[in-house]
Amino acid sequence: MLTSVNNARVKQIVQWQTKAKERKKDNIFIAEGLKMWEEAPEELLLEVYLTEDVEKLLLQEERNREKLQKTTYELVSKEVFAKMSDTCSPQGILCVLRRPFYDKELLLQQENPMFVILEDLQDPGNLGTIFRTGEGAGVTGIILNKGTVDLFNPKTIRSTMGSIYRVPFLIEESLEELLPELQKRGIHTLAAHLKGNNYFQEQSLTEPVAFLIGNEGKGLSEQITKLAGEYIKIPMKGKLESLNASVAASLLMYEAMRQRDV
Amino acid sequence: MLTSVNNARVKQIVQWQTKAKERKKDNIFIAEGLKMWEEAPEELLLEVYLTEDVEKLLLQEERNREKLQKTTYELVSKEVFAKMSDTCSPQGILCVLRRPFYDKELLLQQENPMFVILEDLQDPGNLGTIFRTGEGAGVTGIILNKGTVDLFNPKTIRSTMGSIYRVPFLIEESLEELLPELQKRGIHTLAAHLKGNNYFQEQSLTEPVAFLIGNEGKGLSEQITKLAGEYIKIPMKGKLESLNASVAASLLMYEAMRQRDV
Repeated sequence: MLTSVNNARVKQIVQWQTKAKERKKDNIFIAEGLKMWEEAPEELLLEVYLTEDVEKLLLQEERNREKLQKTTYELVSKEVFAKMSDTCSPQGILCVLRRPFYDKELLLQQENPMFVILEDLQDPGNLGTIFRTGEGAGVTGIILNKGTVDLFNPKTIRSTMGSIYRVPFLIEESLEELLPELQKRGIHTLAAHLKGNNYFQEQSLTEPVAFLIGNEGKGLSEQITKLAGEYIKIPMKGKLESLNASVAASLLMYEAMRQRDV
Repeated sequence: MLTSVNNARVKQIVQWQTKAKERKKDNIFIAEGLKMWEEAPEELLLEVYLTEDVEKLLLQEERNREKLQKTTYELVSKEVFAKMSDTCSPQGILCVLRRPFYDKELLLQQENPMFVILEDLQDPGNLGTIFRTGEGAGVTGIILNKGTVDLFNPKTIRSTMGSIYRVPFLIEESLEELLPELQKRGIHTLAAHLKGNNYFQEQSLTEPVAFLIGNEGKGLSEQITKLAGEYIKIPMKGKLESLNASVAASLLMYEAMRQRDV
């Protein structure tokens, strides 16, 4: 059992929790909590740390016992766990996982895809929520530009509620290059914009689509707005200037789902 | 100019920022940032604090100059502002406001209303986002049970993006008493639930409606689920168990808006 907060493993995990660069260098991410452990794909799971209380709990149920015994796991004291954890009320189980990798070509080849493209999204909670709603709406993939907040930020991972394991994604250097590439493949690139001709519920979304969602404060950049194939409007009453980025993405994805599943 | 962090006014503001009880006792809330000041209704604005930089900026524009001179305002040093502020990168302007009050009877009498009812919502960001989307969707009012996170939490206020000034709300002691009251008035009380018969896009939402949204982790309580008039489903693909509470509320409100505005 790890009982010293000065242990090298413990220090490494703190580094991974707090530093995007460290996570990237080692191609890993960290997921905390029982649900995130239960849903973790075996092929990604590298290390598991848990407290004695959690071990006792898990060993009581056959399904959990089997899962636990498939990976080596390490017991840690409560004090050490509190140090390792990114949250104020740690659940006592933490996974270190290899990052999933998706092939761009394979992803873009999918039949009648629905993509969401994020430009400079800054809020980890919004990013995670877009993955979560994306899974619900059956999104083909989520494409992040490199200015978007780190997908493997512990807060983002938490707010995906497990969708990080299941929703394909790409991290792209340049959306300026990507958009024409998508258009050449017949994918409609739609920006939610006040200039839009149609409300999103009136626009046909049954063809291949990619929804462009911009930064929380500034929206989409001028360059990307110009490159978008079409503009659609989200109606808004009152004095509102915009919706929350994850809400806007959710409305668009669910409308596409509604039209496609009829 | 206030230059001492030990000044009694400064200490009072820190109390208001950090303690729900203090805010409630004095019937006030705090809103930070330029946008929140610009949109603040005059009849609610009690005190304004700003740094010299912000004062200089505001005095340059006539509209801002006029608004600034309608309330007394107090200059504070940057150090004092940092102490008063709830954020890491303070914008240099902070308002103390009286809480708006909405008459329950008047609100419930509105023609063909759309309400959102929140049970034990815990995340300030979700609550604020529901107000923001609610304004966009033209919600009649948002009803919070007393177990829901403090509406006047600085994080909630920030994420309303100004909608706190414009969306009517009620804070109710008991949803058990409220639901039959709404039903007697012909308002359909709809719970998003896996047991639902209809998907929300198939359900007619053009009649008076109230959408019930539960706690982020636990959903709606059993008692409230039982009291709901009807259940509707939000379709979900993948292995998802639920959507984020503010996303679920947003999908429902926007669907009602779509059906009503046709």
